[in-house]
Amino acid sequence: MKTRIPLILLGVVFSGRLCFGQTEAPADDWKPASSNQPGREYPKVNSERRVRFRVVAPEATSVGVTFRDSGPFTKGEDGAWYGNSRPLDEGFHYYMLKIDGAEVPDPNSMMFFGAQRWGSAVEIPAHDQGFYALRNVPQGQLREIFFHSKSTDSMRRAFVYTPPGYDQNPDQRYPVLYLQHGWGENEYGWGAQGRAREIMDNLIAENKARPFIIVMIYGMTNETRMGGLRNFDIKPFETVLVRELIPFIDSHFRTLSGQPHRAMAGLSMGAMETRMITLRNLDVFSHIGLFSGGSIAVSNITDMAAFKASNKLVFVSYGSRELGGNRGGDPKANAEALREAGINSHFYVSPDTAHEWQSWRRSLREFAPLLFRP
Amino acid sequence: MKTRIPLILLGVVFSGRLCFGQTEAPADDWKPASSNQPGREYPKVNSERRVRFRVVAPEATSVGVTFRDSGPFTKGEDGAWYGNSRPLDEGFHYYMLKIDGAEVPDPNSMMFFGAQRWGSAVEIPAHDQGFYALRNVPQGQLREIFFHSKSTDSMRRAFVYTPPGYDQNPDQRYPVLYLQHGWGENEYGWGAQGRAREIMDNLIAENKARPFIIVMIYGMTNETRMGGLRNFDIKPFETVLVRELIPFIDSHFRTLSGQPHRAMAGLSMGAMETRMITLRNLDVFSHIGLFSGGSIAVSNITDMAAFKASNKLVFVSYGSRELGGNRGGDPKANAEALREAGINSHFYVSPDTAHEWQSWRRSLREFAPLLFRP
Repeated sequence: MKTRIPLILLGVVFSGRLCFGQTEAPADDWKPASSNQPGREYPKVNSERRVRFRVVAPEATSVGVTFRDSGPFTKGEDGAWYGNSRPLDEGFHYYMLKIDGAEVPDPNSMMFFGAQRWGSAVEIPAHDQGFYALRNVPQGQLREIFFHSKSTDSMRRAFVYTPPGYDQNPDQRYPVLYLQHGWGENEYGWGAQGRAREIMDNLIAENKARPFIIVMIYGMTNETRMGGLRNFDIKPFETVLVRELIPFIDSHFRTLSGQPHRAMAGLSMGAMETRMITLRNLDVFSHIGLFSGGSIAVSNITDMAAFKASNKLVFVSYGSRELGGNRGGDPKANAEALREAGINSHFYVSPDTAHEWQSWRRSLREFAPLLFRP
Repeated sequence: MKTRIPLILLGVVFSGRLCFGQTEAPADDWKPASSNQPGREYPKVNSERRVRFRVVAPEATSVGVTFRDSGPFTKGEDGAWYGNSRPLDEGFHYYMLKIDGAEVPDPNSMMFFGAQRWGSAVEIPAHDQGFYALRNVPQGQLREIFFHSKSTDSMRRAFVYTPPGYDQNPDQRYPVLYLQHGWGENEYGWGAQGRAREIMDNLIAENKARPFIIVMIYGMTNETRMGGLRNFDIKPFETVLVRELIPFIDSHFRTLSGQPHRAMAGLSMGAMETRMITLRNLDVFSHIGLFSGGSIAVSNITDMAAFKASNKLVFVSYGSRELGGNRGGDPKANAEALREAGINSHFYVSPDTAHEWQSWRRSLREFAPLLFRP
């Protein structure tokens, strides 16, 4: 006992900054987050990637934020409440304010759909943020479209990215990527927090990716809160995607409509959907992208000869901080085994990110240049 | 005195329901608002056009809403706070929750930009809501585009509505309406709460309007909170619109690019902008629409012969509940005088609505069929 107590105390002292956050003053170089509503000074982000919040709630007794370790806010001299987050990963993070027990959006933040709700988020500047910045390069368009789905008897929204020059080159046809969001997110995700438009415009401007169309649709077709993904039924979504949306896109956009020119990718739950749907529809999709959601083992492929003949790419990626769990086998080992079996298999790890949008933005950046190559 | 007191008391009794709201129970036919986030039961609306809110704020001592006369909410048996609004006009209304003095978005509501913020709103079912409902008719597209503006040295967002069939008829060219939001709103307004896409798709499906392109851009170019519109300088916005956006649209979309095929309209501040810009640019716009924002008197037109030769339509509208104020003369009388002077002048009043989106949705419904007629 005599030796162990000092060691524990030493640990507390050394980790004090992380545990308590207030023992050292945070770096005083706060700048308004780019995810703020127009003209709002808060939330601010500093060079340690902490976020500082300001909440005007004069009669509240308790104010906080959903980021863990942030602790309760304190009242400033101006009567507003202030609090800091821990250092966050580079990139995009959902959050909500907590005001006397109410979980509400921050009125200073732009609104994004995640965790089954429109709510707040904060953008932490990243060392590589240029690849998803809005630049003065030829611009694609993000189009909101609606189509009638027979199987669900509903009008369904999709977003369609058309690359720069689409309207100016009426004789050109384009391959198509169907790109899915994660659980609790929706068809807005890739175009908003995913920055798919900016990523593609920038890649195309740098001649790193071939221009193609991207289609984004809501992937939780059964409209239920899927508590358990184990009981997930892929059928309703597969029907909407393969039997309804693809024919609609092929008849309303200038697509190259054959299987060699069609890809599917998704993040998290969207990767699970991509995996299930592409393996069941080898004649529909030739390129597969799984971002932070499983991998494809050689043993998952029932007919390797057929798969090899039809598939042109299997891309699997993860954030470095989420690797290590058992997700149907080690994804890197699975990717290598696929490559050894003769598949065009790629594996990517996003450095210093977890199960979050920065991993998926980077995954799209890595995936897009591999698509639809001769 | 003897006779007057009973009369006053009688008045209180008769108006008790309106004044106090709690003396009679509201109609118990609440239905979730169509403006709710997916799957949310509250806010609900009843047949009296009242809204019932539910707020989970266990430790709060005071909860309310920004609708006037709504009073403080009360705690229900489930521990959540409940409150009702007064009967509201049919249509769309911005609001925010008040939780212990904090003004925050309702986590149950979809988010809309108004009053210089992304916040909550509620949709009150209207007797004529079919004209802006999403129907299974041929669908136009709402496209998010960006272009570089030299005068502001910035990439600027616009939304472009392309009518049904735009992509399928590559040889057809279309006239263009430039359509502006109001003060504190932005370029999302007409496509979201304005329902411009649904209104146009439905009118075109019924053969009531000619297919045309609509372009929507942010109209507060100077990026300041324009407290006083009296000191408003139209120049920066006029430059972006007339010198930058119009050439961009004409070179990137299949427009009929001449003055006879170009209209401008706007609501409130957008009407003021429309009035100033169109009167200064008779060679650019031939059709003018002012929704709830001034009118054009004969005396405003410096050269009536030139105006008559170039103008094809002046449309002015108001909500019935906002008429009566002095806005540069009586708008109806001004419209009649213009007509007598030989101008194609139309005046429309939206029944039982005020300075709000239901007036403007109806104004677009009335305005669009008059546009670009031979």
